[in-house]
Amino acid sequence: MSNQPFPLMSNKDLPIGIFDSGVGGLTVVAQVMKVLPHEEVFYLGDTARLPYGNKGKDTIIRFSLENGKYLVEQGIKLLVVACNTSSSVALQALQQALPIPVVGVISPGVATAVATTKNGHIAVLGTRGTIASNAYQQAIAAALPSATVYAVACPLFVSLVEEGFLDRQATRLIVQEYLSPLKGSKVDTVILGCTHYPLLRDHVQEELGQHVTIVDAAAACAHAVHDLLVQERLIASSRRQGCYRYFVSDNPEGFRRIGETILGTTIDHVCSDALMQPH
Amino acid sequence: MSNQPFPLMSNKDLPIGIFDSGVGGLTVVAQVMKVLPHEEVFYLGDTARLPYGNKGKDTIIRFSLENGKYLVEQGIKLLVVACNTSSSVALQALQQALPIPVVGVISPGVATAVATTKNGHIAVLGTRGTIASNAYQQAIAAALPSATVYAVACPLFVSLVEEGFLDRQATRLIVQEYLSPLKGSKVDTVILGCTHYPLLRDHVQEELGQHVTIVDAAAACAHAVHDLLVQERLIASSRRQGCYRYFVSDNPEGFRRIGETILGTTIDHVCSDALMQPH
Repeated sequence: MSNQPFPLMSNKDLPIGIFDSGVGGLTVVAQVMKVLPHEEVFYLGDTARLPYGNKGKDTIIRFSLENGKYLVEQGIKLLVVACNTSSSVALQALQQALPIPVVGVISPGVATAVATTKNGHIAVLGTRGTIASNAYQQAIAAALPSATVYAVACPLFVSLVEEGFLDRQATRLIVQEYLSPLKGSKVDTVILGCTHYPLLRDHVQEELGQHVTIVDAAAACAHAVHDLLVQERLIASSRRQGCYRYFVSDNPEGFRRIGETILGTTIDHVCSDALMQPH
Repeated sequence: MSNQPFPLMSNKDLPIGIFDSGVGGLTVVAQVMKVLPHEEVFYLGDTARLPYGNKGKDTIIRFSLENGKYLVEQGIKLLVVACNTSSSVALQALQQALPIPVVGVISPGVATAVATTKNGHIAVLGTRGTIASNAYQQAIAAALPSATVYAVACPLFVSLVEEGFLDRQATRLIVQEYLSPLKGSKVDTVILGCTHYPLLRDHVQEELGQHVTIVDAAAACAHAVHDLLVQERLIASSRRQGCYRYFVSDNPEGFRRIGETILGTTIDHVCSDALMQPH
C-alpha cells in the first residue's frame, strides 16, 4: 500500500512522476487522471526557472536531469516529460541517466498526427527550442517518410497564455503573424507542440480554417503511458482513486490558481521547496 | 594593477560588479561606460533563470544572493543591482549578506523623477514583482510625501522586447491596454522601472503624450555609482580604458547578439558557465 515506507512497496504501487517547466504539464495530468484513475501522480513544475522554450540546449538538458532525478528521489515508477521543449532536447539524456522508463510527449503526438492526416501535410507549432531541436520533424519523417512538415516557432504564445491574454485583438494579431507561413499551404493537421498552446486552440483553428485538425499531444501521451505501464506490468494494484502531489520551485499561489483551472479540481497541497539542492 | 593576483590588488582597482536577470542590465553598463570610462566591469546575466519579474519574492531573493555572491567571488569592489525586480525585493538582503557596497536602480530613478515632476503626479511602470513589492511607491513617498503615485504592472513588455516585437500593432495594443489607467490622469513623469522598457519608450510616449517626461533609471544609476565610488574612495587609479567581462548562466549567443545592440560595441568573450554551483 502506498502509505508503507518505500522499501516495502512494490514498484507498481509507486506514483507516476510528471514534470514540466511550469503549470502547462497539468494538461497531461488531467488526461492521466481520466485514462489511469487509480494511479498516483507526483507532479513537478520548475516554476522558478520557467520558461524553458527560449533557452539553450545544454541548459534545458541540465534542468531536465535535475527535475528527473528529483522525482526519482521522491520514489516514482515511470517518468513522463510533459514539457515539449524538454522532450525534444533532453529525452535521451533522461533515458540514459534514470533507472526507470521515461516517456515524452513527442512520439504520442506524432503518432496521432500521422494517423489523422489525409494528405501528409503536417504542421508543428512549438517554442523556439522545440522547433530548433528538429525532434518533431525527425519523428514525423520516421513515421511517415512521404510527409511534408511545416515547423513554426511561436515564442510569444507561452507569455500570452501565462498572462491570460486569450480573448484579445493583440493575441489574434500575433497568432496571425506566426501562422502566416501556413496560409495557403496544404496543411490538414496541426500538432500543438507545447502544453500551453491548447489555450490558444480557437485562435489557431480560426486562422487556419475548420478543415484543419488540431492534435493536442496530452491525451495521446496519457494513452502511451497506459500502454507502457501494461507492457512493463507496472499498473497500480490498488483500485481506489489515485492521490496527487505537486512540487514547485517557485511559490505556489500562481501555480495553484492556474492549475485548478486546468485540472478542474482543487489542488490541496503544493510543496514549494523543490529543487533547492540541484543535483 | 588589475593583472596582478587578487591579494596584491587594492580594492579600488577591482571591477564594479553588475547583475541582471538577463541582457537588459547592459543599459546600465552602457551608462557606466560613459560616466566612468576607466572602471572595469564584471557583468552577470542570469539568462538560464530569467525572467525574474513574475516570480515569487523568496525565489528572487535566493537568485539575487546567488548572483551577488558569484560576482563577489570573482573579485569586485561594489555591486550594482541593475535588475529592477531584484532591486525592489532583494536589495536589503544583498546589503546584509555581502561585504561590499550594494547599489540598486530604484533610489536613483526616484531621485530623478522627484526632481523632474512639476505637479507631483508620478507613474511607475514595472514587472509584477517590482510593482507588488511597493519599493518604488515607498521610495517616492519618502522623497516627496505630497506625491501621487500610479503603479502599473506591464508583465508582457519584457517578452515583447525579448522577441523583438517593437514596431507592431499588437505591441501598441498591449501598451494601450496596460497604460489605460493613466489616460486622463495628471501624470507628468513616468519612471521606466524595468531595464527592458526603454526599448518601448516611443510607444509609451505616444500613448501618454509629449507633455509627459520619461525617466530611464540607468543613467541616474550610473551617476549614483560614480558618487558612491568617490565617497568610498574607490575610483580606479588607472587612467586607461576599462575592461569588461561578461558572465551568463545560459548559452551566450542570444546574449551577445542583443547585448551588442544595447552597448553599441562588440562583446568579445562571454563566460557561459556562471552559477553552475549555486551558493
